[in-house]
Amino acid sequence: MKMRNVAIIGTGHTKFGVRTDVNLQELAWEAIKQALEEANLDQKDIQYFVVGNVGSWSAEELPAVVVGEYSDLTPKGTMRVEAACATGSAALRDAYLAIKSGEADIALAVGVEQMHQSPNPQVVELIGRAGDYFWEFENFGLTFPGYYALHASAYMAKYGAKEEDLGKIAIKSHHYGARNPYAQFQKEITMDEYLKSKPVAYPLKLLDSSPITDGAAAVVLASEEVAKKITDSPVWIVSQGVASGTANLSKRTDFTRIEAAYLAAQQAYSRAGINFDEAWRFFDVAEVHDCFTIAEIMAYEDLGFAKRGEGYLLAREEQTYIGGKIPVNVDGGLKAKGHPIGATGISMAVSITRQLLYRAPKGTQVDVKHGMGISHNVGGTGHYAYVTIFSTRRPSS
Amino acid sequence: MKMRNVAIIGTGHTKFGVRTDVNLQELAWEAIKQALEEANLDQKDIQYFVVGNVGSWSAEELPAVVVGEYSDLTPKGTMRVEAACATGSAALRDAYLAIKSGEADIALAVGVEQMHQSPNPQVVELIGRAGDYFWEFENFGLTFPGYYALHASAYMAKYGAKEEDLGKIAIKSHHYGARNPYAQFQKEITMDEYLKSKPVAYPLKLLDSSPITDGAAAVVLASEEVAKKITDSPVWIVSQGVASGTANLSKRTDFTRIEAAYLAAQQAYSRAGINFDEAWRFFDVAEVHDCFTIAEIMAYEDLGFAKRGEGYLLAREEQTYIGGKIPVNVDGGLKAKGHPIGATGISMAVSITRQLLYRAPKGTQVDVKHGMGISHNVGGTGHYAYVTIFSTRRPSS
Repeated sequence: MKMRNVAIIGTGHTKFGVRTDVNLQELAWEAIKQALEEANLDQKDIQYFVVGNVGSWSAEELPAVVVGEYSDLTPKGTMRVEAACATGSAALRDAYLAIKSGEADIALAVGVEQMHQSPNPQVVELIGRAGDYFWEFENFGLTFPGYYALHASAYMAKYGAKEEDLGKIAIKSHHYGARNPYAQFQKEITMDEYLKSKPVAYPLKLLDSSPITDGAAAVVLASEEVAKKITDSPVWIVSQGVASGTANLSKRTDFTRIEAAYLAAQQAYSRAGINFDEAWRFFDVAEVHDCFTIAEIMAYEDLGFAKRGEGYLLAREEQTYIGGKIPVNVDGGLKAKGHPIGATGISMAVSITRQLLYRAPKGTQVDVKHGMGISHNVGGTGHYAYVTIFSTRRPSS
Repeated sequence: MKMRNVAIIGTGHTKFGVRTDVNLQELAWEAIKQALEEANLDQKDIQYFVVGNVGSWSAEELPAVVVGEYSDLTPKGTMRVEAACATGSAALRDAYLAIKSGEADIALAVGVEQMHQSPNPQVVELIGRAGDYFWEFENFGLTFPGYYALHASAYMAKYGAKEEDLGKIAIKSHHYGARNPYAQFQKEITMDEYLKSKPVAYPLKLLDSSPITDGAAAVVLASEEVAKKITDSPVWIVSQGVASGTANLSKRTDFTRIEAAYLAAQQAYSRAGINFDEAWRFFDVAEVHDCFTIAEIMAYEDLGFAKRGEGYLLAREEQTYIGGKIPVNVDGGLKAKGHPIGATGISMAVSITRQLLYRAPKGTQVDVKHGMGISHNVGGTGHYAYVTIFSTRRPSS
């Protein structure tokens, strides 16, 4: 049966960083306002909205409701969704399905997180609970840098990647972050600075790690019929894959990859008619989930951009800069742009949309040859994975 | 464009009550297992699952992930959704849209809540934060019984309803709860007991109030094509309406109704071709959100079962018992069955499905004349509202 096509027709993005100058709903509204303006719509046109927010550190128990009221979206239908650090992509999915299913013609997805509402050690504790609280956090004290350090150690031991290869990811992220006015860290770093940065969990250092971030991002989606009337530059959601991993990392068989991300990519590629081994040839730009540098290297392999065990070579050879084999995270990535966990997935969609429409910040714009982009958003350590494919060409469906 | 029909093909429901005998994932699995068995499917057949859980009192930060692993649903795609006390209906919606949109052919929605994980005063505090935390909870100390007491006072003052009319609701709920083996309270109460029960927030008493509950409920949904192969007794989701209300109750203009519920009903009725003023004629059974007795009376009016200001007469005349104008909450409702807030919306869908298929517990089965049922699930005090219509007849769409 023929399904409805869904397009992004407006995008909004706040400055990422320490955003205690506003409250949660004000932060969300900054992104929503921009997205509505870009779509040339106002609140009454929105038929449904969804709020992505983890918010364990938030005083507000019902983020979707306070955001709805403050943004004047009440009484439109809504819900809050959560998929750990992939929460933004879960929100995108909900709005996408609302339109694809015919329940709405215009919907808004906003991701928002204000992680600085909580003092720093508590945030790390709360993030540490993501996974299997009872077995791994309560009993063994694992927190997220520890989890990803397991991945990095396993990967380096098996494939011979070096600390400098991880450093290359951080340097690239900061190179582009320095050119993105929305980024939390707008300064470049050197390999020397990287190697000397404080150890967090061996082999990961401070400069391998994405920061604690406040921020919001929003997209307005529309059905094909409506999109055609509103804009001459829609960006279509071609397909989405979604998969999950075990809560316990002890039940995973391989620490050199994120199996859920691989499965989500397979789904998304299969629906879009993309061959996994040549996937990189299809895309002008990719946004991947580099919560730690090692995660970006695993993403190269889980998305088929590099063969197993060769992802670090893409970094070493600088093939994921603009002009390389496939530009990745040229908005600064989670590492330098920042990682407000409820917003990150939508931020990826915003960056890709603006890239495909030649609206990226100066010094970060890729050449658009294929009109296609891809986002890879992981929750936890592969507890959730969402892979989404975007295109300026209308899907035939 | 023709959309896909979606059917419920399996239902599961745990005993509601104090369920500290199990953990969150074990509780969810009780319902999931039953739903899979009823659908004659196993985990590998499920293509997507969604977990409804509020869980502010939960140690587990990622309920969908621990439920997925324990229930052997990993690596299927998933997310957690939240819409306060309407969370179960939000989960139903997500699974419904996954199938209606063509993203999946078989999906599972489970709602689970373990409110006794937290000591009682803290649960009331956490529920109190649902609404506008900053203005109404932090500054004025309003908690949920207080909010609904405002509704009850306004309603009684405007329309002349009496305490005994509220009592009629509680007595009916306990009458049917006593006959539902899954109910938290399986005993009848008298008007005298009702009138003498402890005051909570005038005019509401302990016996006006739904309890703190642990429990889970699950449904398996399938596309028409798949449902036809699996079962000869599908129950179709005909339509769903969804709306929201302001976070601040101070911004509401009328306390004698829940505007969001009325709007959600309008949407659901409009899509199903049902005339609001005669809505009660269409349904064999209704499940409404009686978190406090006054809420059930407002629901009668917001759903069009009674004219404005006359809902309490339905209670007084016992028209919502089996054999009356329209049987409502004949499973005991939130009041007697219990209200595990993430599960309640799915529990309603389970009760309606079993009623329409003549599988309700003895002494609670309605006569099925139209083959249709309706659920009304409110989050907060009208912060969210979901109205869903079910039928044994396949929608023509």
